[in-house]
Amino acid sequence: MANAFRKATHEQTRVHNRCLVLKIIYDQERISRAAIARMTQLTRATVSTAVGDLIEDGLVREVGLTSSTGGKPATLLSFVDDARHVISLDLANREFRGAVINLRGQILYRKNVPILPTDRDGTLGLLSILIDDLLREATRPVLGIGIGVPGIVDIEQGVIRHTIHLDWQNLALRAILAARYGLPIHMANDSHAAAIGEYMFGPYEDGASLLVLRIGPGISAGIVLNGSLHYGDGFAAGEIGHVSIQHNGQVCRCGHIGCLETLVSRKVLLESARAIAASDPDSKLHQFAASPDAICSTDIVLAAFSAGDQAICNLIAGMGRHLGMAVATLVGVLDVQHILVAGSMARFGEALLNPMRLEMERCVHYELAKHVRISPSYLGQDIVIQGAVALVLSKELGLA
Amino acid sequence: MANAFRKATHEQTRVHNRCLVLKIIYDQERISRAAIARMTQLTRATVSTAVGDLIEDGLVREVGLTSSTGGKPATLLSFVDDARHVISLDLANREFRGAVINLRGQILYRKNVPILPTDRDGTLGLLSILIDDLLREATRPVLGIGIGVPGIVDIEQGVIRHTIHLDWQNLALRAILAARYGLPIHMANDSHAAAIGEYMFGPYEDGASLLVLRIGPGISAGIVLNGSLHYGDGFAAGEIGHVSIQHNGQVCRCGHIGCLETLVSRKVLLESARAIAASDPDSKLHQFAASPDAICSTDIVLAAFSAGDQAICNLIAGMGRHLGMAVATLVGVLDVQHILVAGSMARFGEALLNPMRLEMERCVHYELAKHVRISPSYLGQDIVIQGAVALVLSKELGLA
Repeated sequence: MANAFRKATHEQTRVHNRCLVLKIIYDQERISRAAIARMTQLTRATVSTAVGDLIEDGLVREVGLTSSTGGKPATLLSFVDDARHVISLDLANREFRGAVINLRGQILYRKNVPILPTDRDGTLGLLSILIDDLLREATRPVLGIGIGVPGIVDIEQGVIRHTIHLDWQNLALRAILAARYGLPIHMANDSHAAAIGEYMFGPYEDGASLLVLRIGPGISAGIVLNGSLHYGDGFAAGEIGHVSIQHNGQVCRCGHIGCLETLVSRKVLLESARAIAASDPDSKLHQFAASPDAICSTDIVLAAFSAGDQAICNLIAGMGRHLGMAVATLVGVLDVQHILVAGSMARFGEALLNPMRLEMERCVHYELAKHVRISPSYLGQDIVIQGAVALVLSKELGLA
Repeated sequence: MANAFRKATHEQTRVHNRCLVLKIIYDQERISRAAIARMTQLTRATVSTAVGDLIEDGLVREVGLTSSTGGKPATLLSFVDDARHVISLDLANREFRGAVINLRGQILYRKNVPILPTDRDGTLGLLSILIDDLLREATRPVLGIGIGVPGIVDIEQGVIRHTIHLDWQNLALRAILAARYGLPIHMANDSHAAAIGEYMFGPYEDGASLLVLRIGPGISAGIVLNGSLHYGDGFAAGEIGHVSIQHNGQVCRCGHIGCLETLVSRKVLLESARAIAASDPDSKLHQFAASPDAICSTDIVLAAFSAGDQAICNLIAGMGRHLGMAVATLVGVLDVQHILVAGSMARFGEALLNPMRLEMERCVHYELAKHVRISPSYLGQDIVIQGAVALVLSKELGLA
């Protein structure tokens, strides 16, 4: 095991217990020291020391007394949601999205900046301007900066190995930002971050496994297994968009044939919708786009779908079935019961999810399939931004 | 996290440090207390206490002195491979395979018994007779009984949920055997056990990820991620044999269409070989089987293959390609770089593995595929027996 050579010292014990106490206070609305001691089986003295440290740090405060039932009423403790702020960034394909967020994941300020065609220094400059702006808006001490990156991120070295839309190959972004801001910097692939965020802020039990599929410009997944994100040997786990599922299918942009991404993506959605509009003068798409070429956003397709266009409905169902095939493989291999769908395609809701479920059930043994739940992600459109916050809360406070 | 509510106590610290010291001694041929202290960063006193306990338990012994380079020579410590024996069982499809094994995985005694058609009490009786026999052959205190089961095993409850070839649905086997033998009993699905064994006894770095594919009567996988076995939410991870890869393929015994198992398995191998023998009077199969119906074992097909039968070679290559497709999906999703092939089909060696590699590389992005190694398993035919031992070493001594 990676941590087999890590000794357990008294200092580690103290930090472990402090994180444990903080996590319990974070998960409860109000709780007494005695209740924490019962839950953790730690001594009252150990709990009191940990709570004292947390109060001194401003992360916990006393908020009143239990209603007495005879004995002496106990002081109740509560987590201070605004004790720190976190700077969170989603380096999305067309824009950098930033936010100032409190420790409960509440977004206090947002700013998005479009990515202009420029070189590496240009995009790095753009990022710095955005972070400077976000830091000005933070009204509490900043716990750290979390970043979701659409690409392969070596989280150990803090280096972006590869991105699709930016000229950032082998960029040591953590060191660059740490030197500039003097703050803890935590980065991960955007789908990896999304999965951590969904696990931390969503309605899942401790130690749950979940698979978060993000379907937008491409398709990728973030995989949490037994409460831990699975990064992969080369930090590239979850690249399901380039798994071949049609042997005589189309050539993908990656050079391979029949990748899932050639069958399900925003690009495929828009191209198929254009073809429907071009061939069917009665298509509801014509109500929302002056010409097939004007169909350039998921919003337009969604509007025609909401107006009841049957061809669009069939198109979405077909994509759902392809996703169901891919998910069936994952369910069979990983036996993960929570499947969450995020990204712009998730906005088609049950029209996408229901065919996906049926296909998954068709392809997987009933005993496995019957426990699987395919649902929209809890965090929705902000899943990467929230995931980047979760990265910081997890690494800096042990809250995951 | 599942263990978020587990406090760190001094007792836990002591046990953790003892396991850590034992693991280092287990991994080294000979080592001094001072060297252990350097490797672990534990104090000399803590190391000495842990070593004292381990010597008292007979797990470690002093074996000589370092050759002096000026200073006082240090006492060297070594692990005692035969300090305990382990009873190991592979409840394979046609026979129960048992062994007495030392702590280094060396098989000291073997006994296999065929499974006769009988009821639940009959097969349980057969198992007890086998265990009784193995216990008589153990010449050291027995650390525990490890069992690999072809089916779904709830390792938390110690209950066999489902097996294919035995009438053992929802059988509380751990409780039954613990009551009878008064020994620690550790069970797991056979492919799960195989993966733990391969990780523990094979040439992999600490914290490695590996995927062990077992191809015999059926196909299943055991998945070790970052040094931990992934069991799955319902203890059914790795069931890749029933993942559909051909939409208009054959109906599988599970009721679904185009499962990997309909394309690659011992049954498919034998049926295809019979068809080759029936249609080709020049087939080398005729040298090893009097008639197509007599082709009833992998050995016969392997003999014809070794004699250079081209049709058999093509058959194996086709199966390799189907496996490559399945593995491509796993590589894309999990980014696991060690892929090991075990089970009776692994005996076809490169004739199977090379087409498997080429197909995987065809289906997976080059950046991912270039780091992947597809190899025969290190443990070979004894992988489940060794895996069952690894279960016991892992749970009882923390050696994994």
